Amino acid sequence: MGTSGSAMDVPRMEVIGITGIPEVRAGDRLGPMIVEAAAGQGTAIEAGDVVVVTQKIVSKAEGRLVSLQDVEPSAFAVQLSAESERNPRVVELVLRESRSIVRVDPARGVLIVETKHGFICANAGIDSSNVPGDEVVSLLPEDSDRSAREIRDELAVEVGVIVSDTFGRPWREGHVDFAIGVAGLDPFHDYRGSLDAQGKVLHVTRIALADELSAAAEVVMGKALGIPVAIVRGVEYRPSEGGSSTLLRDRSEDLFR
Amino acid sequence: MGTSGSAMDVPRMEVIGITGIPEVRAGDRLGPMIVEAAAGQGTAIEAGDVVVVTQKIVSKAEGRLVSLQDVEPSAFAVQLSAESERNPRVVELVLRESRSIVRVDPARGVLIVETKHGFICANAGIDSSNVPGDEVVSLLPEDSDRSAREIRDELAVEVGVIVSDTFGRPWREGHVDFAIGVAGLDPFHDYRGSLDAQGKVLHVTRIALADELSAAAEVVMGKALGIPVAIVRGVEYRPSEGGSSTLLRDRSEDLFR
Repeated sequence: MGTSGSAMDVPRMEVIGITGIPEVRAGDRLGPMIVEAAAGQGTAIEAGDVVVVTQKIVSKAEGRLVSLQDVEPSAFAVQLSAESERNPRVVELVLRESRSIVRVDPARGVLIVETKHGFICANAGIDSSNVPGDEVVSLLPEDSDRSAREIRDELAVEVGVIVSDTFGRPWREGHVDFAIGVAGLDPFHDYRGSLDAQGKVLHVTRIALADELSAAAEVVMGKALGIPVAIVRGVEYRPSEGGSSTLLRDRSEDLFR
Repeated sequence: MGTSGSAMDVPRMEVIGITGIPEVRAGDRLGPMIVEAAAGQGTAIEAGDVVVVTQKIVSKAEGRLVSLQDVEPSAFAVQLSAESERNPRVVELVLRESRSIVRVDPARGVLIVETKHGFICANAGIDSSNVPGDEVVSLLPEDSDRSAREIRDELAVEVGVIVSDTFGRPWREGHVDFAIGVAGLDPFHDYRGSLDAQGKVLHVTRIALADELSAAAEVVMGKALGIPVAIVRGVEYRPSEGGSSTLLRDRSEDLFR
């Protein structure tokens, strides 16, 4: 330590991956599984932590896996998938989970939709990675705010819970994790009306804290590592009983659909 | 610690804010300022760290502040700002810093552009927060990869450096930090071809690691706190001499412009 500072003064956030969570099956209660796995690696979940849980294990626990052989593709799904190598049964599921189609590029098999929840993403968040079997895909949770609340209730300590998923973005290559479900924390850090370091009022900035925490958690989780949960410690957030819906821009204010 | 795990086994990332960096002026060398401020709070910069620096102090060090009184707005800038309360001199600067206009909403004064660098963002990244004076704004660095490289060279330890800025996103409310300059690390974590936890090949996923690290750093920096630098420790990344340009999607593959 230097002479002019103490460890207490240093702004610091820690992201701790939780390993050892077993394969999740329909009906499993994630809260106790997370507590047990955390304890197994010597990590206690503390009040004020934010627990970030990837969508995939939430979908598994909620029985949101679908066998493609049970899906009969419509004529429209067959047509949409004709030019690309996409499986028409997957396209059929994407359409069923969607409220509207935002963009489609049939040649490359890209389908950007607005899901029933209001998320705008590729393929309605349906994918087959980290799902057992070759012909099985996972759907998003029906209500990922409810999923987050249930996990939070099971954790029995005052934490925030985020359900995260990996989305692409317009204009930029690569994927990042976003928050699709939130419980116990305000998804924003709102600086509007506060003063900047120069003493001027900040007019515009409202930070999507829940999205930034999801991104931070993803770095530790990785994609191939079997780490579906991370704890973020040392974050200032405002407790809130609202969910994630305020993160979704209203169509009337959106310039890109 | 529990009995079945050791601290070594726990995946962990730490984000440490660097306080005490003085007001940055044109010509300042940021590397030594960062090292000194870090030392002042007892933080050593270690090999393998990723140092995230906000655009604002980079722009200040590079003299990229502009007094609005020196800017003569063109007829087009006056026209674009007529419906909203936007300052036509700011709009003029936005146009000068842009390669093309992606969307404009004159009534609300929203101007989404592609900057000369290729970033797509509101107002070409020009803003007045955390800038001294009421009639002064900051422009983005001319070449933020070069800025990142220069800081990296000055740090004289094998780190990655990211220059970050705060952008909005389509479809979602709130802002998050993105990487606009990168030195010393591959901006992606590429899982394509690797195996997921089920042993299946991951086909699609390439994580925009530099964007996720920028987002993580922002949580610790805050906007009103005067913390313009954060160190991210415990990240696995691939050293690279390439910059950030691979983060920008080619127009021909972009469905949203």
